[in-house]
Parts: sequence; structure tokens; C-alpha cells
Amino acid sequence: MPSLITATPQEGRELAIKMARKSIAAIQTDPEVRKKLRNDYANDTAQLIASANVIAIEFQTIAKANNYWK
Amino acid sequence: MPSLITATPQEGRELAIKMARKSIAAIQTDPEVRKKLRNDYANDTAQLIASANVIAIEFQTIAKANNYWK
Amino acid sequence: MPSLITATPQEGRELAIKMARKSIAAIQTDPEVRKKLRNDYANDTAQLIASANVIAIEFQTIAKANNYWK
Amino acid sequence: MPSLITATPQEGRELAIKMARKSIAAIQTDPEVRKKLRNDYANDTAQLIASANVIAIEFQTIAKANNYWK
Amino acid sequence: MPSLITATPQEGRELAIKMARKSIAAIQTDPEVRKKLRNDYANDTAQLIASANVIAIEFQTIAKANNYWK
Amino acid sequence: MPSLITATPQEGRELAIKMARKSIAAIQTDPEVRKKLRNDYANDTAQLIASANVIAIEFQTIAKANNYWK
Repeated sequence: MPSLITATPQEGRELAIKMARKSIAAIQTDPEVRKKLRNDYANDTAQLIASANVIAIEFQTIAKANNYWK
Repeated sequence: MPSLITATPQEGRELAIKMARKSIAAIQTDPEVRKKLRNDYANDTAQLIASANVIAIEFQTIAKANNYWK
Repeated sequence: MPSLITATPQEGRELAIKMARKSIAAIQTDPEVRKKLRNDYANDTAQLIASANVIAIEFQTIAKANNYWK
Repeated sequence: MPSLITATPQEGRELAIKMARKSIAAIQTDPEVRKKLRNDYANDTAQLIASANVIAIEFQTIAKANNYWK
Repeated sequence: MPSLITATPQEGRELAIKMARKSIAAIQTDPEVRKKLRNDYANDTAQLIASANVIAIEFQTIAKANNYWK
Repeated sequence: MPSLITATPQEGRELAIKMARKSIAAIQTDPEVRKKLRNDYANDTAQLIASANVIAIEFQTIAKANNYWK
């Protein structure tokens, strides 16, 4: 993550998703385990919603850093 | 998502809901699976409330981007 | 929701509750189902607390839009 | 809730707790039911922590409204 | 809690933890019960993480009140 | 934690993770117990997502303290 600045809101969303994923990778450092775990949350709506909550918070930070791309 | 700017607060709410949905679609990329999962959370109040939490966070960002439509 | 501006903090609270409810109605669109589900969360303290969390976030946005009614 | 302005941070905390309680009372309107439910969450640490989360969010709003009592 | 102002970020963290604890004490007022309950969450990672969430929110407020100790 | 100021966004992420971990250590003070508990959440996607939520909130504070590294 070299910078919070992105060209567009859409790229800001992608960065938010990437940041959320990197947080999980920082705790569960084994990529093989993460790959296996992926199925657990991709089919569990409660966890999908919780993931969306994280993305929404990360995006708040990114949007502010970019002055809302105004 | 071309922009965070909307004409009205109501359109801002709709964008917040759309953003929350797109987050879930970014993690569970199979539209058929998402369709099947939909029933899981639309009838589970805990998940409906968790979804409303995500929408509230996304809306904070949108409302600020629009200077609260003042 | 025509506007985030309210006359008083109390009306701001009411708007926050209304916004949280509308989010749920946007996902579970059948009013009969919502009516049935209502009992699920009105008697479950964990869900009541989760609802209060959503209201608190929505109120943050409304309070800021109203410059804290100062 | 006539105002978000309080004399001290401590009174701000008390208002935050009151606001969280009023949210729950707005959803579960029967005081007898609320009284019975009280035992459910006062002895369940997960729910006590979730309640503290709501209070923390409400306090953010109150603290900002009071310019952090500076 | 006489003030949100602290000398250092570290003291700000300590205040955030104290505020989270006081919220719980405001709901579960019996110190003996709280002592017994303590074991429930200190050994449950989900509840430890939920506690860290509350601390993070309280710290946001404190950090802003202190202008990030700049 | 001597300061919220970091040289880069990446170092800000690392500080956010460290702050989240320190919160947990403040509640569960026994390092041996924490080590044993670590396996509980590193293999539970719901808890990994909840951890990412905490990191996102801590990072909001750090990013603002650093004026988004602009």
C-alpha cells in the first residue's frame, strides 16, 4: 500500500477491499490456510455482511484522503 | 460507481445500499450462489440489522461527500 | 427522506430510527414478512443492541448535518 | 433529549448511555418486557461489550457536539 | 472521567480502556457479578476482539480531542 | 506507542495492527493464555473479519493523525 490516493471512487473501493484482505493476511499468515478458509466466509451471508462492514470503514478513510474525488 | 455525488439524500441512500451489495459481490463473485444466499439473510433479522449497519457506514461517507445536501 | 435537517435533536433521533428501518425494508421488501420477523428481534437483546448500534451511526450523520443543533 | 450539550465529559457519558437505552426502548416499547430482558444482557459479556460499542459511538457524537469540552 | 485530555497517546489508550470498562460497569452494576463474568470474555477470542473494537472507537474520540498529540 | 505519526501508510497499517493486539493484551494479560487463544481466531474467518474491523477503525485514527500522508 504505497498511498491512499486513487484516481477514481471505483479504485478507492478496490483499495478498501485490498486493505481488508491484507488485514486478514496479517493475522492468518499461511496462504494455504487462508485459501481453505475462503470457502467458509464466501458462502456464509453473516460473514459476507461483516466483510462489507470492514470495507465500508476502510472506504471512509480512503474517500476522505481523496477529498471524495471532488 | 462513477461518483459519490447524488442529487438528493434519497439517492444517497440508494447508493449506500448499492455499495454494500457490491462489496458482497466482490467477495462472493458467483451470481447464482448470491441469489441462493439471499434468502438466508432476508429472513434473518440479525443479518438484516448487520446489513443496515453497513448501509449506515456507507451513507456517512456519501452524506459527507455531498456536504449533507445543504 | 427528503432532508437530513431536523428541528431538534429528538427529531434527529426519530429520523435515525426511520433510516435504520428503511434499510431493512430495502432488503426484506415484503411487509408481511417484516411484520412476522419483528417479534424475532424485539425480544432478543443481542439484536436490540445491534439495532441501537445502527441508530447511533445514523444519528452521527444526522447530528453533523444539523451542526449538532447549536 | 432536549440537547447534546452537557457541562462535563462525565455528563456526556451519561447522555450516551441514556441515548443507547432510548434506542432500545423505541424498538421494544413494552417496559415490562424490557425489564425481563434486562437480565439477559446484564449477565452476558458479549452483550455487555456490544452495549459498550453503542455507547462509544453515541459518545463520539456528543463529544464532538461539545467540542470535546475544551 | 474529568477530562478527555491526556499527556501522551499511551495515556489516551489507557483512558479508552477505562471508558470501555466504565460502560460495562454502568450496565452491570454489581462488582461481584462483573468479577465472575470477567473470565467469560478474557478467554474468548471473539469477545476479546469485540472489546478491542470498543477501545478503538473510544480512542478515536480521545485522539481527536487531543489533536492527535501533535 | 510513543506517537501516532508514521512515515508511510504501510507503517500506519502496522501500527493499527499493533494497537489492536495491545488492546487484547490489556484485557487478557497472560501471554501464555494469549498464545493458546491465538489458534482460536486465526482459523475462524468470522473472528478474522472482526479483527479486520478493529484494524480498520484504528487505521482511521492513524490516517487522520498523519493527514493521510499527503
